[in-house]
Amino acid sequence: MINGDIKNSFLLLFGKNLEAYRKKKKLSYRELAQNCDLDHSYISKIEKGEVNVTLETLLELMKGLNISAKDLFDFDFDINKLNS
Amino acid sequence: MINGDIKNSFLLLFGKNLEAYRKKKKLSYRELAQNCDLDHSYISKIEKGEVNVTLETLLELMKGLNISAKDLFDFDFDINKLNS
Repeated sequence: MINGDIKNSFLLLFGKNLEAYRKKKKLSYRELAQNCDLDHSYISKIEKGEVNVTLETLLELMKGLNISAKDLFDFDFDINKLNS
Repeated sequence: MINGDIKNSFLLLFGKNLEAYRKKKKLSYRELAQNCDLDHSYISKIEKGEVNVTLETLLELMKGLNISAKDLFDFDFDINKLNS
């Protein structure tokens, strides 16, 4: 069982990376929300690491930002923590 | 709204890539299931593209296979389909 802190840190890292891509593309929450089928407040929650995002939501974010799934996971996360 | 066929093809591509990594590591469903907190039948469903996988399940798969999130998305998917 992976402990809650590690899960939370992964979700937060994902959210911060998403925020960095959104800002790089100079999009507000509402502008990104218009590009995809997600509510702007949901995007804000994802960026705060509060959402256990699904593959279908990843697709919407890929569409909204015009980036790949690998880009969405382009952040440092030590997988050895998972097996310690 | 992203159409259902595109969503299904993304989930299936994810599943096939997962299967390729599991076989590369010479793990059966049951052996992979023992390495992480997922049932072997659930892993089989994921590989068939039948599960809208979440980030927390990604973490379990990363743990079980000892690979990164980017490895789990190491497959070709044309993002232009999302905006066509």
